[in-house]
Formats: sequence, C-alpha cells, structure tokens
Amino acid sequence: MVTGSDGSDDTQEAIMRATYRALCEHGYANLTMQSIADELDKTKGVIHYHYDTKDALLVAFLEYLLEAFERNIAVDEDAPPDERLLTLIDTLLFGPPERGEFDHWELMTALLEIRTQAPFDEEFRRQLSQNYETVEAMFVATVEDGIEQGLFRDVDPELAAHLLFISLNGARVYQVTLQRDDIAEATKESLEEIVYGWLCRPEADVDTSSG
Amino acid sequence: MVTGSDGSDDTQEAIMRATYRALCEHGYANLTMQSIADELDKTKGVIHYHYDTKDALLVAFLEYLLEAFERNIAVDEDAPPDERLLTLIDTLLFGPPERGEFDHWELMTALLEIRTQAPFDEEFRRQLSQNYETVEAMFVATVEDGIEQGLFRDVDPELAAHLLFISLNGARVYQVTLQRDDIAEATKESLEEIVYGWLCRPEADVDTSSG
Repeated sequence: MVTGSDGSDDTQEAIMRATYRALCEHGYANLTMQSIADELDKTKGVIHYHYDTKDALLVAFLEYLLEAFERNIAVDEDAPPDERLLTLIDTLLFGPPERGEFDHWELMTALLEIRTQAPFDEEFRRQLSQNYETVEAMFVATVEDGIEQGLFRDVDPELAAHLLFISLNGARVYQVTLQRDDIAEATKESLEEIVYGWLCRPEADVDTSSG
Repeated sequence: MVTGSDGSDDTQEAIMRATYRALCEHGYANLTMQSIADELDKTKGVIHYHYDTKDALLVAFLEYLLEAFERNIAVDEDAPPDERLLTLIDTLLFGPPERGEFDHWELMTALLEIRTQAPFDEEFRRQLSQNYETVEAMFVATVEDGIEQGLFRDVDPELAAHLLFISLNGARVYQVTLQRDDIAEATKESLEEIVYGWLCRPEADVDTSSG
C-alpha cells in the first residue's frame, strides 16, 4: 500500500476497513463505491482521491486482506515439525489462536467472494497465486524439516504440501458456502490422521507394539 | 424439473442450456433474464412463462447442473474398490472419460459461481448439501468395500471420504479461480499416494519385498 506523510495511511486504512464492512454486509455483487462511502461516513470523493476506480480499490483491498491473512498464520519456527504442521492446519481452519483483527469466518467469506472473481481478473489471480505460494512454501519447509529430523517418512514434500493445502482450501470453501461449522473440526481430524498415519514414520506410530 | 405434455420439457431444456451459455459468457454478476433470452433467441416472456423469477430459474438451473454432474460421476460398481476410488478421483478431477454434455471446466466454473452465492441463499445450500452428501456417500461406500475385502486398512470410512472430498473440492476451486490447469494432475498424484501409501494395507504395497 502506498504510504504518505499527511495522514493518508490512516485514511487508506479506514477505507480498507469500510470496504471490508461493506463487503461483509452487502456481498460482492452489491458492493458499490457508495456503500463503502456510507460505511466510511465520508463522501465518495474521499475514496476516489485515493483510488481512481473501484477495480484499483479492490486490488488494494485484496492485498490488504492477504496481508492480514499471512500475519495470522505465522508459526513458531522453533517448534518440532509435526507440532508446527498441526498449528498451521489449526490456524488455517480456525484462525489465529490470539484473535486477529478480523473475525476468521468473515475474512474467509470475503476472500472467497473475491477469489470467485479471479477467473475474470488477472491482478486478483497474480495476488492470490503469490499468497498460495507463500502458504504452500510454509508446508513444504515444515515437511522438509520433518524428513530431515527423521520424524516424517521420506515423502515428496511438494506432494504432501499440495495435499494439505488443497484439503484446507476445500474445507474452507465447503464450510463458508454451506455454512457448516462442523467441517473445520472434521477436517482437523482427517488431517491429523494423515499426518500421524501417513506422514510420520511408522516407528513413531507403533513404537510400543513393534518392540 | 416440472414436466408437461406440450413440449414444455424441450423449452425448459433449451432455457437451461441458454442459462448455461449466458453464465459462461457473462459471469454470475452480469447474468440477466435478458442475456438468457438473447442466448435462447426468444423473448423474456417465454422464460417468465416457465420461471416466475430469476431466483426460481437459478434454483432450477442449479438442479440441472447437479444432475448433469451426478450422471458424469457414475462408476462401475463391480470394479475393485481401489480402482473405483481412482476412477472417482479421476472423474471429479478431469470430467467423465466419455465426454459429457458439458465441458468439464466450464461446468466447474459455472458451479463455483453459484456456490459462492450459497451463503446468501438457503435453497442453493439445500441442493448443494444434497449433492455433497451423494458424492461423499460414494466415497464412503467404496472405502467400506475396500476394508471389507481386506484391501484397505481399517480406517474410519467417513474420515477418509471427507479427506478425499475436500481435497478434490479444494483442487477444483484452486484450478478454476487461478486458471491453473496443472492443479488437477498434481492432485491426482497426491491422492494416489494417499490411497496407496495410507489407505491400502501395507502388505498390498510391499507384497514383493515381504516375501
């Protein structure tokens, strides 16, 4: 986001928050500059001073959402790989343990609405690709650490990361679109089974019985 | 779909196909009764005769899409469970082997657009839930058969079905929104690894080396 020394940071932050509220309230299809101005309690002119077009505003807004999302999923690099993996899974399913700036499911719903526009918008695709790469890279690094430490089997880290990423992605869309708040919990169970039943070395799993 | 003896079946089928073309061309946000009438090459009156409102038309349209989708994923019940599972995965990723009535990715894009409206529409949610249950039930039955035949480990079939379902769901959204036609292939690889590395009994996997 472009910053200035004249308090325009604050205004831009206020516009982003107003856009978020307007999106949550009206949905993407009914999101207008006027509805954002109403939430901001200012005229449309103030918004246009910072963003030429609605498209420019939405591109900045997606960047803003993805930055919030990436702050939310930061994990402790010193924890053991299996613990880090489960923390990452939990955070992507339920939001950060310390409540972030946004309600997790409202943020997920807002992101899904913008994602659905991505087939029609190259800039949205570019930003989302970057975000996906960031998240997948976190999974790859964690799986690689686990293999290196002898905790995980010698799987293809990219393949494992891809599986975890798409599962979480699918769970989120399922939960948001069908408003099923049991999906995250079922997904946590499935993925724990995959982490301990497939990814972790069998020795770690059957230690007591294999003598 | 309501049927009649006056050729209204054909008209309704033609309206559904026109809605599909209009959706693919204009996207959900710009889908109007007029754009559908243009594709149908008839007046809006013809559409209104069959469907009172745009909402009623879209509910019928979602049913139509989901029926096409369910016809596309029918599998051979007599094939061995692991083969059936892979066929189901393949079909959900790449469409039916014998090309269905619709282009697979166009159908997926159209469905995603309607799914994104589901948080705001109870009837959409009801239909999609039913469809999800149908697909998940196919996975559950296949995993249960595999366990019964001693081919799969004694996992929780619901949990395995959930994992497969959300992965495929997530892969589809990923591929459609970011227009990445390599995602389906990467997902196929990940899920084959899960089927053979986790779900199948280790004996089946290491048969040659365990003597």
